[in-house]
Amino acid sequence: MASRVCDSVLVTGSNRGIGLELVRQLVDSPSSPLQIFAGCRDPNGPRAQELQELAQKHHDVITVVQLDTDSVASIADASKLVEAKLNGSGLNLIINNAGVNIPGSLAESGTQEMVDVFTTNVVGPMLIAKNFRPLLCKAAAQVPHQTSMSCRRSAVVNISSILSSLTTCADNFNLCPMYPYRVSKAALNMLTCCLAEDFKKEGILVISLHPGWVQTGMGGPQAPLTTAESVSCMMKVITSLTEKDSGTLLDWEGKSLPW
Amino acid sequence: MASRVCDSVLVTGSNRGIGLELVRQLVDSPSSPLQIFAGCRDPNGPRAQELQELAQKHHDVITVVQLDTDSVASIADASKLVEAKLNGSGLNLIINNAGVNIPGSLAESGTQEMVDVFTTNVVGPMLIAKNFRPLLCKAAAQVPHQTSMSCRRSAVVNISSILSSLTTCADNFNLCPMYPYRVSKAALNMLTCCLAEDFKKEGILVISLHPGWVQTGMGGPQAPLTTAESVSCMMKVITSLTEKDSGTLLDWEGKSLPW
Ligand SMILES: NC(=O)c1ccc[n+]([C@@H]2O[C@H](COP(=O)([O-])OP(=O)(O)OC[C@H]3O[C@@H](n4cnc5c(N)ncnc54)[C@H](OP(=O)(O)O)[C@@H]3O)[C@@H](O)[C@H]2O)c1
Ligand SMILES: NC(=O)c1ccc[n+]([C@@H]2O[C@H](COP(=O)([O-])OP(=O)(O)OC[C@H]3O[C@@H](n4cnc5c(N)ncnc54)[C@H](OP(=O)(O)O)[C@@H]3O)[C@@H](O)[C@H]2O)c1
Repeated sequence: MASRVCDSVLVTGSNRGIGLELVRQLVDSPSSPLQIFAGCRDPNGPRAQELQELAQKHHDVITVVQLDTDSVASIADASKLVEAKLNGSGLNLIINNAGVNIPGSLAESGTQEMVDVFTTNVVGPMLIAKNFRPLLCKAAAQVPHQTSMSCRRSAVVNISSILSSLTTCADNFNLCPMYPYRVSKAALNMLTCCLAEDFKKEGILVISLHPGWVQTGMGGPQAPLTTAESVSCMMKVITSLTEKDSGTLLDWEGKSLPW
Repeated sequence: MASRVCDSVLVTGSNRGIGLELVRQLVDSPSSPLQIFAGCRDPNGPRAQELQELAQKHHDVITVVQLDTDSVASIADASKLVEAKLNGSGLNLIINNAGVNIPGSLAESGTQEMVDVFTTNVVGPMLIAKNFRPLLCKAAAQVPHQTSMSCRRSAVVNISSILSSLTTCADNFNLCPMYPYRVSKAALNMLTCCLAEDFKKEGILVISLHPGWVQTGMGGPQAPLTTAESVSCMMKVITSLTEKDSGTLLDWEGKSLPW
């Protein structure tokens, strides 16, 4: 029997795109997590239909959780629900996948655009990490004999982007300026670095992961990767993360990207 | 006669700390700029007294400009005033110095803290660059024979911090967690990279500059550098910037820092 990815996992923004495919491949994996929490800001809306069907099919494993990562109250409620469902166990893995992008030339970018994208792409993952920290700590502590870090034990994966990279910005800026998005994803990487240091003593691994350019609402139809391809590669990366990866930026094939 | 730093310069947050010292050394330099615009959010308040005295002494050079970098209206008004004062000339140099820091452990950091610090430290410099772009372009175009970039021609200097560095975060995180500040300064560096690419065709140089750890309200009394030391070093760096520096992070001694 293949070893379990982990016992429990939360995926944010899981009603479509990469997030939905993450939930699908997690539940379809040879040894699925025992509990998958599928965060979704509008679980009863039309955009959640596919997720709801998947959840019905795997009702013993998938719990759809109302989770608007822009809302402190929604995050707090979701963490209480997840805690209750875990029934004394910790939460092994959080995939901060929910994210937004908007047209973003300098002319198009004002305070509102910058703050909105920052709020979803950076503050959301921070508040999730903060609110779920006790559950992550509990999971990390439940394997005290295991001193090394892994997603089986306790981890936060922040879905970042190659467009977060300061080093490579000049190579692709003119193709897609995207001020609010680039700025937010570079900021998200700093959140990853801070959390990696902050959570180290508790045995929680934290990384940024670039999914590749993927065919989704955000990536568009001209992207080279399907969600299935991106996610199956990312699953391999996620399941093989170790201590040395914490506080770094990897791509869907496990290659290290420069900040 | 020493060659002029530049003909005209705007410094934000210039009523105290590093900003005030920048204005002081600019006006005291052997060949001072012809016009120094000293941005200050409360020019008539008690915290602007020292700046007002300096401006009175050098009333032919220094213009105190009401400039709250959190306010779109204030930035727009300031750019109109500066344009009028320049009387047809461009603006050579902007030093985005205004910045804030707050206590910033994870427990202390919520949406408000993250967004407030981001707004001042990142959105402010972006809106300044956007609003003053026509004046920067005009300055760059006024020396068409000069194809290389420099602060004498046209430049934006974003005052960043070593705490912006993703590479060195693990080395100093536990000394000063500062989530909102670190995240904002990494985001500011991405703004620098984007602006450097965006403004390249117009001949405008853009960099991030770390002033060192400096004795100011923000740096505290235990900092190793006085404002005089930090600023005199930074002035040397600023005046010797060339094309190859655009889109990078330098420190007060001109050393390149890793992202
Ligand atoms: N696609 C690519 O090429 C690409 C490349 C690099 C990085 N990424 C990153 O990958 C992640 C997933 O992107 P994607 O391509 O799957 O995008 P997508 O198809 O646009 O889906 C975005 C998902 O995030 C959710 N979301 C947005 N704001 C939310 C909020 N406040 N609360 C809860 N959920 C929210 C959306 O929910 P709704 O349905 O309710 O809007 C949706 O489920 C993002 O972080 C993105 O930046 C994507
Ligand atoms: N000191 C250090 O060790 C250090 C190290 C690395 C980087 N830095 C950076 O250096 C820059 C200057 O810092 P400092 O040490 O001189 O700090 P400071 O003594 O606290 O002074 C900050 C200045 O910024 C102004 N400011 C803040 N928010 C503003 C706004 N919305 N609009 C206009 N002005 C605003 C303040 O004006 P008010 O008087 O109205 O508040 C003040 O003039 C900052 O960007 C800081 O991040 C400092």
